[in-house]
Amino acid sequence: MRIAVDAMGGDHAPDEIVRGALLYRDSGGVADIILVGREEVVRAALGTAPRPGITVVDARDVVEMHEHPSSELRRRTDTSIGVATELVKRGAADAVVSAGNTGATMASAVLILKRIPGIDRPALCGMLPTVKGTPACLIDAGATMDAEAHNLLQYAQMASRFMERVHGVARPTVGLMSVGEESGKGGRLQHEAHALLSGAADITFFGNIEGRDPLRGTTDIVVCDGFTGNVLAKGMEGVVDVFRDGIRNDIFGGVLGKIAYVIALGGVRKLRGRLDYDEYVSAPLLGVGGVSVVTHGRARANMLRHAIKVAERSVSQGLIGAIQAGQKAGQGAGPGATA
Amino acid sequence: MRIAVDAMGGDHAPDEIVRGALLYRDSGGVADIILVGREEVVRAALGTAPRPGITVVDARDVVEMHEHPSSELRRRTDTSIGVATELVKRGAADAVVSAGNTGATMASAVLILKRIPGIDRPALCGMLPTVKGTPACLIDAGATMDAEAHNLLQYAQMASRFMERVHGVARPTVGLMSVGEESGKGGRLQHEAHALLSGAADITFFGNIEGRDPLRGTTDIVVCDGFTGNVLAKGMEGVVDVFRDGIRNDIFGGVLGKIAYVIALGGVRKLRGRLDYDEYVSAPLLGVGGVSVVTHGRARANMLRHAIKVAERSVSQGLIGAIQAGQKAGQGAGPGATA
Repeated sequence: MRIAVDAMGGDHAPDEIVRGALLYRDSGGVADIILVGREEVVRAALGTAPRPGITVVDARDVVEMHEHPSSELRRRTDTSIGVATELVKRGAADAVVSAGNTGATMASAVLILKRIPGIDRPALCGMLPTVKGTPACLIDAGATMDAEAHNLLQYAQMASRFMERVHGVARPTVGLMSVGEESGKGGRLQHEAHALLSGAADITFFGNIEGRDPLRGTTDIVVCDGFTGNVLAKGMEGVVDVFRDGIRNDIFGGVLGKIAYVIALGGVRKLRGRLDYDEYVSAPLLGVGGVSVVTHGRARANMLRHAIKVAERSVSQGLIGAIQAGQKAGQGAGPGATA
Repeated sequence: MRIAVDAMGGDHAPDEIVRGALLYRDSGGVADIILVGREEVVRAALGTAPRPGITVVDARDVVEMHEHPSSELRRRTDTSIGVATELVKRGAADAVVSAGNTGATMASAVLILKRIPGIDRPALCGMLPTVKGTPACLIDAGATMDAEAHNLLQYAQMASRFMERVHGVARPTVGLMSVGEESGKGGRLQHEAHALLSGAADITFFGNIEGRDPLRGTTDIVVCDGFTGNVLAKGMEGVVDVFRDGIRNDIFGGVLGKIAYVIALGGVRKLRGRLDYDEYVSAPLLGVGGVSVVTHGRARANMLRHAIKVAERSVSQGLIGAIQAGQKAGQGAGPGATA
């Protein structure tokens, strides 16, 4: 197995990306890694020691984090994310992983790998930590705007296959994000989606959930439209940041705080462990014809290692085939299926 | 001025509600308070000492927190929230405040006080703390599903009048919730709303904001549809709860933790003060023909005191008249204005 990694993508690229690839290999990762980026820069980060299982493919262009990739991305043929995705298309790699510009990673996947037949809109499947200690996923975390009910059903189906195959969850439960638990809650989209999800045989539908539920781990899968998912994920992340800063600077900031920190260290580690999302933060883009995993722009080596692991399991467990088989079996309810 | 308070509404009713009313009066509140609820219960909570400026109005029925008020609410004529809202309608009170069932408070306001002419859909204006220390408001926090762009413009106008009059913010800035700051980001609703907000003369439009921005205090007002606002508010609150529990139980839980707590107490208070939202958590329902303020179901006396204060300022500063005047001046862009 070979996994192409965008070595230039992310706030800490290329050093932390290259370190993440090494960490993946050193911790027993079975896939060979293809680092894609400016060759001299990537090789400098790799160092001179021999690195079995790691190769470098040159790409001269980089989509920067702050860029807003649009149609012009089609004309840029030598970006690290574009070249890495092309490797998957040509069969020279089995998956692509990037901590870079999410829009560019998604656009590359859709343009180059194309959608899976029957899937109308791709969706970003964002992983979240929960207070139960089990991971949950939020789909769609922002790939598609103006989703319709049949899209939400496909999200539920794709995420179910992902949680079964990649995270080993048997019969993962699906919650529909709404403003109350009764089936009548929400707007037109939620009413229609509730009916479709209730009738689907290939998912375990829990019912409506609310904004507090993802973190509580009420269901394994949280389904919502990409606008809501993006706003919710960023909103929750914003609160996490405020508390992290608050604990660091307010509670443990001054001289007394530093003493208290040493005394409370066990508890701090407990809370940190509970909310550590390095393992979870990778978000596969589901619905495209290949494995494409996005991870956080802030990703450092350990987070990247886990993202590569998610890509590896997606390949070894046949995720794409499982999603395709579901669509072929007519379990998908796209406009084609309902017409 | 007289403010009707639903004495039976909220997790800690009637004791904390009654205490909140007393606290309001004792801290210099100028409005007389009318406590509405089962008279014998309310009087027991009030105690036997004379309480100038506080009267009790009997109502035998209560909408419980877990009830889902629907059309049947019309038939229940003796609920505490219904009777309190009727007092405003009849001119026997100038505002109504409730920590009870939000759906029932909103339904009572819409049914009894009616919408302000020109306002198509009412909106809940939820207050949020920000890291800047200034309050911000999120409108609509969940009153209306399936909002359209002209509704979002009216939310921005109503919240601008609210922040000017009640919170004394000159030229409050309005951010449109989206998935990126460029004007092209988001779905159809956001594109249309961006165009309307950009063209409105009676608001100070900042542009698009993202899920992280409300807590950062990027703008004084956050405008979004009620579905998104409800999910975002509950999602953020869920994270706050997890951290509060984590700080209390994980960091400061054990014997060492308790020692650390004493040492770090100054810092803990600093963080708590930064995130204290007692002052902010009241959410007026804007767009109805009277002052109706909802506060958190968990509200205790201090939070209720602040909610009464918000109602008092809304009345004394002529909030309803300011919203009506804006609509009459044709600054509103309802379907009538654009047709």
